[in-house]
Amino acid sequence: MSFDQKEIFSLMYKLARLIVPDTRVEYDAMGPMHIPLDRMYGPQTMRSLMKFPIGGVEERMPRPLIKALGIVKKAAAEANKVNGLEENLCDAISKACDDVISGKLYDEEHFPLVIWQDGSGEHTNMNLNEVICNRAIEILGGQMGTKEPVHPDEHVNLSQTSHDTFSTAAKIAVAMQLQEKLYPSLRIFIDLLSKKSSGWMDVIKIGRTHLMDAVPLSLGQEFSGYQQQLENGRSRLDSALCRLYQLPMGGTHVGTKYDTKKGFSEQCTKRIAELTFLPFVESCNFFESLSACDALVEVHGELNTIAASVMKIANDIRFLGSGPRCGLGELHLPENEPGSSIMPGKVNPTQCEAMTMICAQVMGNHVAVSMGGASGHFQLNTFMPMIASNVLRSITLLGDGMKSFCANCLEGIEPNKTKIESIMKNSLMLVTALSPHIGYERSAAIAKAAHRNGTSLLQEAINAGIEREDFDEWVQPSKMLGPEK
Amino acid sequence: MSFDQKEIFSLMYKLARLIVPDTRVEYDAMGPMHIPLDRMYGPQTMRSLMKFPIGGVEERMPRPLIKALGIVKKAAAEANKVNGLEENLCDAISKACDDVISGKLYDEEHFPLVIWQDGSGEHTNMNLNEVICNRAIEILGGQMGTKEPVHPDEHVNLSQTSHDTFSTAAKIAVAMQLQEKLYPSLRIFIDLLSKKSSGWMDVIKIGRTHLMDAVPLSLGQEFSGYQQQLENGRSRLDSALCRLYQLPMGGTHVGTKYDTKKGFSEQCTKRIAELTFLPFVESCNFFESLSACDALVEVHGELNTIAASVMKIANDIRFLGSGPRCGLGELHLPENEPGSSIMPGKVNPTQCEAMTMICAQVMGNHVAVSMGGASGHFQLNTFMPMIASNVLRSITLLGDGMKSFCANCLEGIEPNKTKIESIMKNSLMLVTALSPHIGYERSAAIAKAAHRNGTSLLQEAINAGIEREDFDEWVQPSKMLGPEK
Amino acid sequence: MSFDQKEIFSLMYKLARLIVPDTRVEYDAMGPMHIPLDRMYGPQTMRSLMKFPIGGVEERMPRPLIKALGIVKKAAAEANKVNGLEENLCDAISKACDDVISGKLYDEEHFPLVIWQDGSGEHTNMNLNEVICNRAIEILGGQMGTKEPVHPDEHVNLSQTSHDTFSTAAKIAVAMQLQEKLYPSLRIFIDLLSKKSSGWMDVIKIGRTHLMDAVPLSLGQEFSGYQQQLENGRSRLDSALCRLYQLPMGGTHVGTKYDTKKGFSEQCTKRIAELTFLPFVESCNFFESLSACDALVEVHGELNTIAASVMKIANDIRFLGSGPRCGLGELHLPENEPGSSIMPGKVNPTQCEAMTMICAQVMGNHVAVSMGGASGHFQLNTFMPMIASNVLRSITLLGDGMKSFCANCLEGIEPNKTKIESIMKNSLMLVTALSPHIGYERSAAIAKAAHRNGTSLLQEAINAGIEREDFDEWVQPSKMLGPEK
Amino acid sequence: MSFDQKEIFSLMYKLARLIVPDTRVEYDAMGPMHIPLDRMYGPQTMRSLMKFPIGGVEERMPRPLIKALGIVKKAAAEANKVNGLEENLCDAISKACDDVISGKLYDEEHFPLVIWQDGSGEHTNMNLNEVICNRAIEILGGQMGTKEPVHPDEHVNLSQTSHDTFSTAAKIAVAMQLQEKLYPSLRIFIDLLSKKSSGWMDVIKIGRTHLMDAVPLSLGQEFSGYQQQLENGRSRLDSALCRLYQLPMGGTHVGTKYDTKKGFSEQCTKRIAELTFLPFVESCNFFESLSACDALVEVHGELNTIAASVMKIANDIRFLGSGPRCGLGELHLPENEPGSSIMPGKVNPTQCEAMTMICAQVMGNHVAVSMGGASGHFQLNTFMPMIASNVLRSITLLGDGMKSFCANCLEGIEPNKTKIESIMKNSLMLVTALSPHIGYERSAAIAKAAHRNGTSLLQEAINAGIEREDFDEWVQPSKMLGPEK
Repeated sequence: MSFDQKEIFSLMYKLARLIVPDTRVEYDAMGPMHIPLDRMYGPQTMRSLMKFPIGGVEERMPRPLIKALGIVKKAAAEANKVNGLEENLCDAISKACDDVISGKLYDEEHFPLVIWQDGSGEHTNMNLNEVICNRAIEILGGQMGTKEPVHPDEHVNLSQTSHDTFSTAAKIAVAMQLQEKLYPSLRIFIDLLSKKSSGWMDVIKIGRTHLMDAVPLSLGQEFSGYQQQLENGRSRLDSALCRLYQLPMGGTHVGTKYDTKKGFSEQCTKRIAELTFLPFVESCNFFESLSACDALVEVHGELNTIAASVMKIANDIRFLGSGPRCGLGELHLPENEPGSSIMPGKVNPTQCEAMTMICAQVMGNHVAVSMGGASGHFQLNTFMPMIASNVLRSITLLGDGMKSFCANCLEGIEPNKTKIESIMKNSLMLVTALSPHIGYERSAAIAKAAHRNGTSLLQEAINAGIEREDFDEWVQPSKMLGPEK
Repeated sequence: MSFDQKEIFSLMYKLARLIVPDTRVEYDAMGPMHIPLDRMYGPQTMRSLMKFPIGGVEERMPRPLIKALGIVKKAAAEANKVNGLEENLCDAISKACDDVISGKLYDEEHFPLVIWQDGSGEHTNMNLNEVICNRAIEILGGQMGTKEPVHPDEHVNLSQTSHDTFSTAAKIAVAMQLQEKLYPSLRIFIDLLSKKSSGWMDVIKIGRTHLMDAVPLSLGQEFSGYQQQLENGRSRLDSALCRLYQLPMGGTHVGTKYDTKKGFSEQCTKRIAELTFLPFVESCNFFESLSACDALVEVHGELNTIAASVMKIANDIRFLGSGPRCGLGELHLPENEPGSSIMPGKVNPTQCEAMTMICAQVMGNHVAVSMGGASGHFQLNTFMPMIASNVLRSITLLGDGMKSFCANCLEGIEPNKTKIESIMKNSLMLVTALSPHIGYERSAAIAKAAHRNGTSLLQEAINAGIEREDFDEWVQPSKMLGPEK
Repeated sequence: MSFDQKEIFSLMYKLARLIVPDTRVEYDAMGPMHIPLDRMYGPQTMRSLMKFPIGGVEERMPRPLIKALGIVKKAAAEANKVNGLEENLCDAISKACDDVISGKLYDEEHFPLVIWQDGSGEHTNMNLNEVICNRAIEILGGQMGTKEPVHPDEHVNLSQTSHDTFSTAAKIAVAMQLQEKLYPSLRIFIDLLSKKSSGWMDVIKIGRTHLMDAVPLSLGQEFSGYQQQLENGRSRLDSALCRLYQLPMGGTHVGTKYDTKKGFSEQCTKRIAELTFLPFVESCNFFESLSACDALVEVHGELNTIAASVMKIANDIRFLGSGPRCGLGELHLPENEPGSSIMPGKVNPTQCEAMTMICAQVMGNHVAVSMGGASGHFQLNTFMPMIASNVLRSITLLGDGMKSFCANCLEGIEPNKTKIESIMKNSLMLVTALSPHIGYERSAAIAKAAHRNGTSLLQEAINAGIEREDFDEWVQPSKMLGPEK
Repeated sequence: MSFDQKEIFSLMYKLARLIVPDTRVEYDAMGPMHIPLDRMYGPQTMRSLMKFPIGGVEERMPRPLIKALGIVKKAAAEANKVNGLEENLCDAISKACDDVISGKLYDEEHFPLVIWQDGSGEHTNMNLNEVICNRAIEILGGQMGTKEPVHPDEHVNLSQTSHDTFSTAAKIAVAMQLQEKLYPSLRIFIDLLSKKSSGWMDVIKIGRTHLMDAVPLSLGQEFSGYQQQLENGRSRLDSALCRLYQLPMGGTHVGTKYDTKKGFSEQCTKRIAELTFLPFVESCNFFESLSACDALVEVHGELNTIAASVMKIANDIRFLGSGPRCGLGELHLPENEPGSSIMPGKVNPTQCEAMTMICAQVMGNHVAVSMGGASGHFQLNTFMPMIASNVLRSITLLGDGMKSFCANCLEGIEPNKTKIESIMKNSLMLVTALSPHIGYERSAAIAKAAHRNGTSLLQEAINAGIEREDFDEWVQPSKMLGPEK
């Protein structure tokens, strides 16, 4: 514009402040906006707030994503320094980013936008630009909202677009949350299952297939299967990381790196790796990394498999602990709360319930993520905030849920050895131990007789002409836990 | 116990207050718990808080559910009055419930529990009992935490279990949110589409099938289809309500109404209907209503269908508005925000993006809800908090999202009539108007020639020996909008 | 073309027959194709066969869809008669359609195309046109493949497009299969549950919530809940039918009815209703009905809810039947097959397993259907064959599965009354009957003592100072099945 | 039994043959069954056929699974030889298996059972035992159905259970189909994309983000993104294989290897690896591998991600090819069939439609597989036939679909270079090339003016005082494909 825009803005700003004293006025390309005085964001954030009143605080863009964007902005500021942005501006921006990275500015509610906004996360990108800008202005002793000496677009967002910053931040946030939330919980879970499994290797119990009595195994063997499921889950996650670590930072709009200086993307990525202590590298194809969210779909696929494993485990445990008198009753689960509000003496498997609800949620989230991943068009996937927030939520729920499940349930589980033994001894499955000695059909007949008459195997075996000593020799659960030597 | 438990508790309470001055001590069957002084909940809530540290504030049990439980508790208190609970206690409880129903106590953070807890919502049921109890004690001039003169179990929860209160509250919350959030948004959406459709009935445009040029229709006709989709969506919801309105209140543990006075369930249900102005009735089979969440699965199925409709509509609109120069460009979408942070002059279909992200989320939620619904066992479904919170979230997202979409996008859409007409005139599809006159194969040949040569239909028709007057007579888009008279 | 195309074609046809004697040659706009002599389809079907070699016979377009298209084509032929198509051609076409409607031509493999083709079902529409054309030619004494005197496009497909015929046929096929497959099975299932429920109303058993022992209910009450679930399922389906019965027949390409005579759509729809004995009506908005598949998404939503119900029921039954010695053992399931191939005496709940697998499949199909429904663009949804085939498959699986489950499992189930009673008597849950008499906390103490000591409630109640007569008076399961009078 | 069972059976067999001449009678533990004379299966197969009449031929247990079970049975027969089964029986069984492995016996309809049966695949395991038994008897010159000299349980199924054979076969079938169906198609797809990408590296076109005009990239760059998506898809599959290759063969009922000779599982697994040329190894934990289907859930997770990638690619291509006159029109798709049956000159993206329908189906299948995987109990997952058949179907559909898509669509795609260039030149996005020279806000003003006035950028730039030479120097699409040097 030909008139002195800045001066006019400055006057209008002062005027507006007189009229609506608890807000300030900031300007963007569409005109002035009133901003609450105690908030660091600017007009574009304000517009999104007003235009996307969808859900409440529980729909906010997740904290780890904002922190990751802080890392991205910091790395960009430092890379821009090398590329010609004045050092003091870069330093101020970088310093401002630290308050984003620490979570401080999120907790002080400077990032109020919800997930349900621009599908590239552009609004949140601008929210970052505006907050960092104002914080940097503050650091440099300027006046918030003046865009002087730091400008949100021209300085904070320099060489960037929402496309590359947001999709980069999504990967960073997911990778960091995996390290902070999920891997530690998986380790706790695996270690605890290993401890339980070893400790219970001699507790011989009935096996169950089709929910029906089967040949015996030890409780330790049973739990070793759970442990293996989770170890495999960890390996599954591991194998997805190499693609998650490929960042499109610096790809700008469409992947061509247009509008950046040569080297910018390398420098940013390197700095991000340093800041996060994670082995991030430049994407091997920026067109793929900007237009697709496949790496997040893949990671959530692994979460989905882990959820399937954990649901199986938690289901088994609550069924094995069912009772106290009318269920299977093989496990004692720890009491965490008084049972039913009206029925005394009943301890519910509430940790299993929370855990299985989480697993179902993760499997639902997976469908949302997959649909989003499949629905991108051309150079951009506009389901990114939805995808990223679901992946982060699934990580949090699984991570917290497993930790809680371990501490408040698994750790305190004890086998009800009396019950386990009496159930097993009462079973007819031991008849299989007869089969190699007297043949399939004769064995079947004995078992059926016992079943029909409500008698024991031994009794019917003797009726069928088998010697007691033979029976005792042949039918020993402890000998049934492995192959014939 | 034989000693004077109450006196001992009272002394311990005072002692504890001296030691940890910003908490009070309350007792339940498992022993003492420290409670923050400024919170009205009690020991069982505190236990759940400590044993289920899963996610943060965004994972809290949804506000509408707590409000609905307030309604349930109020109705129960009043029904218990008839059945012998002292009137002053009932009144105090009922009055305390009002502060739950208004949302006040939720907003003051007395209901901090997360979704991921006891699968019957028992912890939240106890949270309600404890808060209402303490609030009623306060009303009656007593001391919070003493359980005197109001007891959380024996008075507030009288004749109830978490099973019937929570599953009743889930249905109430969903029914109310449908009325408050979804139906109004559907009405706005339908009315606006109707307005747009009528206004654009004469804007003739190209039809597109397989994304390819097809015969024309009017923009009004096109939008009338969207309107019909949403009207059908509303009818779909309507048809599910009769099952949603069947409450299992008073069914207690397993549906037998054991532990209630005859008439209790009827009275509660009647009162709930009065309090909500909704036609709730007693379930026609309490065993079904307590053990299954089918009514919620069904309602979410309708939400899923609505999401499918809305995703189609929002996708169409953003494609029709794509451009400004390199897309279809038939619609102008309103500018709500500066476009890309770096590319000037580009206005993105951000409301469509938010809307389609929401639809994908709803479709994912549907899987979680369906899995939960399928996974109940025997007399109780222990995925209820997960199911209810997903249904409520989907309602909020669809309701808010559609409202925002209407106000900030649909309302301001204008057809780009110049573009619409030029596209249509340039098309080859009008050849179909020739087919009845000169036959299928000749018509095809003309269209192919125009396609091959980049020429107009008219030109090639003349080359093929058709008279200009005939062509003009035969090929009139406005005549192609209905059947031959 | 200016030369005599028909003559040339005829010569080429004869020539080709000499060269490749077991095929004939037919022509379409793209040129000649060899067709197996014993197949009635023509070149466009052949092209699709060659261009879409995806999966084998199990991926064929479902039989009910082809039959429904036969109905559509018959109705159209008769409506075209009124509108000027020569009567003898109409009659021949109509007669040819009868062989489609009976399934004969499908079973003779004249409809070999797979689901994975043109997304509007165009290829199958052409397959119908070609087969009906050749069959009509045959009826009229002509030579297959000559398009004389019946032409597939100009006569059989007259006034139609794949869009309206296929989407009409999809609705017809689904509506008919619901009547033929699903409703009858639902009726059988409901009636059988009703019979079981009535018969078992006095078999009192333990209730189970959180998988833990709860207060008693009768086995009849438990099964009445299942019955109610399925009755609700039937009502759910009912409520979706009114939208399913709205046909877009005659809407042609984009819903404008362009290229049809006035009255054509009404006549077709009326005839379809007569032919199917189902209350089909014209769609109230053809733009909606042609561009969206919402009615099918909705119907599948109901199937999804039914699947959730049935999965719960089948799961309960197999858990209640688990054992024979080490599970709950409350039900005897009928033996349909020898158990494990190696372990004698074990009868597996295989019908429950088939049933629950089917439910999971239906819930997966629902996601495919929902995604397809959400993914249409502009005037056409190009996921129709996928959507329709999934709805039809889910109906078949649920219908056949429920029928098999009823006949081979549910019908033969018998309660193990001895076990049911001994489990219940052994339980601690009866303590709730004490609570109204001695208070919540004393009752809890007694139950806990019994739990700790492995003793009976009676024993511990006496230890706690309760009189035996009082106990016997207070604790009677049969009195616990309803509210206090 | 004490009487001479075999003799009695033999007499009854002869008798039965006289009465029902086109069947023979065979016996199992439950009694006699009539078997069609021309079928090799026996009574247990017959029972399953009669008790599970669910769906038709399209619901048959998939061919690759039967072939894989043939491999398992062959390996077991040879391992049993070492362990004491008579050599001639082993050889006959092994030879009989060859006719299963080749697919011959499947194609001759000796394996008619459907997916919806026993959830461990037991019925199919018995079907294999019976057919192989009868075929081996035939080879040895015996009489089918006599169980002499080969017995289905005691010889063919020796040391095996359905649990370990079926879950082993499921993994083998999936691994083999991946090699035979999916990897080859992925290779074709990747190679073709690579060829296209290289060839089009200089075709500069508009980029599109939010469906709106963005900065340019080359068509080759765009397609390189697709190539990378699929290369990543292949890597994703690769990373899941190591867990897929772990076989539970020899784990028998519950994973303990009970009822096998030491070394049996190793020998079987080694032989399976030889027969398949795939690196199968013994599971590192048989309890996990028998009770969970996680490896299949994981593999399907990768298929799900691939489906998301392919849906994006196919969607892009059909939108880029939309037109011919009223869409984007940047690509020419090959004509495979005459277009609409009534509208001449229209070529539909039918291969894209088939492909995207397949992707939606795969994503639905994934939910079924995940639910099944999560729903196992104790030592067995009884959703195995459903899980395995879905994984196999998804592989077939993706494999065949991608192959068809490449051959019939991608291969023939040509850029419409004239259109691509004219679209790009007409766009306003090139304004971003101005931004570094004249600043963000001035650039935005120019673009907006052009947008408002329907003019070109150049025109408005000149109006805004920019020199023509500067404009031409600054605004060059070919310079916008990478970072600033």
